[in-house]
Amino acid sequence: MASGVQRRVYRVGLLGFGVVGAGVVDALQRRGDLIERRTGLRLELHRIADIDLERDRGVRVDRSLLTRDAAAVVDDPAVDIVVELIGGTGAARELVLQALQRGKPVVTANKALLAEHAEEIFSAAQRSGADLYYEASVGGGIPVIRALREGLVANHIESIYGIVNGTCNYILTEMERSMRPFQEVLKAAQQAGYAEADPSLDVDGTDTAHRAVILGSLAYGFPIAFDKVEVEGIRQVTPLDIRYAGELGYRIKLLAVISHQGGGIVVGVHPALIARRHMLASVSGVFNAVLIRGDIVGDTLYYGKGAGRLPTAGAVLSDLADVARNLHFGAAGRVPALVRHDTYGEVRSLGQTYSRFYLRLSLPDRPGMLAQVARILGEHRISIASVVQKEERSGEHVPVIIITHATLEAGMREAVAEIDRLSIVGAPTVRFRIVDFD
Amino acid sequence: MASGVQRRVYRVGLLGFGVVGAGVVDALQRRGDLIERRTGLRLELHRIADIDLERDRGVRVDRSLLTRDAAAVVDDPAVDIVVELIGGTGAARELVLQALQRGKPVVTANKALLAEHAEEIFSAAQRSGADLYYEASVGGGIPVIRALREGLVANHIESIYGIVNGTCNYILTEMERSMRPFQEVLKAAQQAGYAEADPSLDVDGTDTAHRAVILGSLAYGFPIAFDKVEVEGIRQVTPLDIRYAGELGYRIKLLAVISHQGGGIVVGVHPALIARRHMLASVSGVFNAVLIRGDIVGDTLYYGKGAGRLPTAGAVLSDLADVARNLHFGAAGRVPALVRHDTYGEVRSLGQTYSRFYLRLSLPDRPGMLAQVARILGEHRISIASVVQKEERSGEHVPVIIITHATLEAGMREAVAEIDRLSIVGAPTVRFRIVDFD
Repeated sequence: MASGVQRRVYRVGLLGFGVVGAGVVDALQRRGDLIERRTGLRLELHRIADIDLERDRGVRVDRSLLTRDAAAVVDDPAVDIVVELIGGTGAARELVLQALQRGKPVVTANKALLAEHAEEIFSAAQRSGADLYYEASVGGGIPVIRALREGLVANHIESIYGIVNGTCNYILTEMERSMRPFQEVLKAAQQAGYAEADPSLDVDGTDTAHRAVILGSLAYGFPIAFDKVEVEGIRQVTPLDIRYAGELGYRIKLLAVISHQGGGIVVGVHPALIARRHMLASVSGVFNAVLIRGDIVGDTLYYGKGAGRLPTAGAVLSDLADVARNLHFGAAGRVPALVRHDTYGEVRSLGQTYSRFYLRLSLPDRPGMLAQVARILGEHRISIASVVQKEERSGEHVPVIIITHATLEAGMREAVAEIDRLSIVGAPTVRFRIVDFD
Repeated sequence: MASGVQRRVYRVGLLGFGVVGAGVVDALQRRGDLIERRTGLRLELHRIADIDLERDRGVRVDRSLLTRDAAAVVDDPAVDIVVELIGGTGAARELVLQALQRGKPVVTANKALLAEHAEEIFSAAQRSGADLYYEASVGGGIPVIRALREGLVANHIESIYGIVNGTCNYILTEMERSMRPFQEVLKAAQQAGYAEADPSLDVDGTDTAHRAVILGSLAYGFPIAFDKVEVEGIRQVTPLDIRYAGELGYRIKLLAVISHQGGGIVVGVHPALIARRHMLASVSGVFNAVLIRGDIVGDTLYYGKGAGRLPTAGAVLSDLADVARNLHFGAAGRVPALVRHDTYGEVRSLGQTYSRFYLRLSLPDRPGMLAQVARILGEHRISIASVVQKEERSGEHVPVIIITHATLEAGMREAVAEIDRLSIVGAPTVRFRIVDFD
């Protein structure tokens, strides 16, 4: 620092006093001393902005700290670090940009903002020179952003597979446990507080896609455009498929998949069959895990609670400690928000990737039916690894499970469309990718 | 920094050109450009010291870099950062202390040094003001030290459970797979290069204990004395117990266990039964994993390759990047090697802890035998949860498996000693802890 005496107290302006915001206040009150002993620096809550100043959040704060004017908190010269926990891409976007423009460091948990406005936000951070930290945006309390930004700095990232939405993982785990259908389990999850009243952001995969964009942008060194991410949610997963997958040694998980293939990178979100013996298959309930494959370190995996008041607050506090350390040492920008190194700059379609597939066809229980399906698959150069006909009869149709060898996804899509046009088919074919992690 | 123009090139003096040393050279040659793009800083290999200058390590280095004089490398004013990969507590200790005394930052993978001379080394780092980084000392390429030092800064650590010795985990995994005895599997592991010619450091638990000391010291904020750690290795694990444990839903793993209980902390190394559905039970072969329970974040788990040339080199390079960033910003000491905060300053005996136990007794297949055992257990206030008599007969004796409820370890030790003095007992009782993670 230019000044002679280094400061030891850093003042925090908190934007958004919701569940996570109250968690940050709570955790800071309980662990501020510990952080001070560990870092030598004191984090002091200076202002809290929220539109609702009356609601009881279960934490005690001096009312004089509260204000409705978030912009004034950002501009308050006494505020050293801005914590943005408003969420969404409206006011949060403007306030984060405002802080960065004024050279003020920002800690945020806002995955939608970082994913949908990656180019704008990361460019603003780069121009600003101020720190932008966002550990809480992916994997809640799991320090996975830190691992990717710093711990794996010597690695080209080959792939990332993430279970990063606790709501979906909870629903899939419960569906497997109880063998009840999606809608029923969703309703129970909503009652238990594990799913929102409007669950679409979670169950349709959008939230997972936000996190995929953040992980992929960090891994590959350029802001990935959110609209390039192909997304499937979990509404189409049935207990029947969970059971059949289980009989074959697999579990169905909603995965964020990021990898580089043939000179470009692929970012997608979809349910996938993964072998039960794989670590990711053991991730149950609201837990999250991210498997990162680096070319030097090999596979590493990070596991923990992906959401919740305190885990997320813990991630925010670790960012605050980092930012305060950087302020103390005059080391803003020590770890840039996003380093552009563009290892693989092009985002490719999932259609151009290869994987094995699980297909569940609805076919009449008569000779020769499978031959028609096999012919179509063969014409699309899709090689069958195994076929099992199941007992569950639905009218004259029975389920037939086909596992394929690795095949081009585009060809699989065409083949399934063609199969579903056959008059013998009783219901649209169900298709899930099998992820082999190799 | 005081000077006007900040440096962008930092010179590395490498001490020890063995397997990991060659890995660091290799990784730096291959990924130095990537690290430079990500950090803006260039790491340059300036000198390499080793006693053997002739052996081919499979990497190309300019012979003019090589020297037998490690102390001269440390003292070379052109060397900005010292990397210590000699290992052991002899020359390595002196060289690390020498570097720190001269205010020169050190990166080391030396777990024996940090564990057996924790007080001396961490004190020297504190006095020095120079950085001491040691990510590679625990968990190879897994960024678990970083998680503990920085990511979980807001947490009191409640417990740590680690599978941190790849050799032991490989042997236990192979014993389960093949149901062959320890000695046979050890021999195969030695032939495959997964175990040393003298395996005792690994299989007797010393290496795991080194890592337990490092993790525990970081978690609880004081250097834990190595001789306070109670250590059991895996020589006494048999395929029979692995099978019986499996039938009961458990797997046997060698665990480093660090926790705080009743105002003190406990650090131990021992084989333990863990539920097969738990994430740690899925860690197989040479992989490592560390489960850290923080009071804010809950459980987080870190998994990856715990050893090997490149994974370990990757961890060394991430430390080098960190140290170079700190030099660049004049931020040495940004993250102290060990912050003394002494949350729980006393190390207690495992004997004072509670856990469930698995006992395998060798009893005659006659009525009334179990009653004698049950009486002794009862006298030591040990409550039996289940008893199973097995078929495998050895002479007139049969194995009897007892699972107890949670009980004081000291009492269990006494009870087992008393049981083994009974004339009816055919062989010493086998006793393993069951770790429940709750």
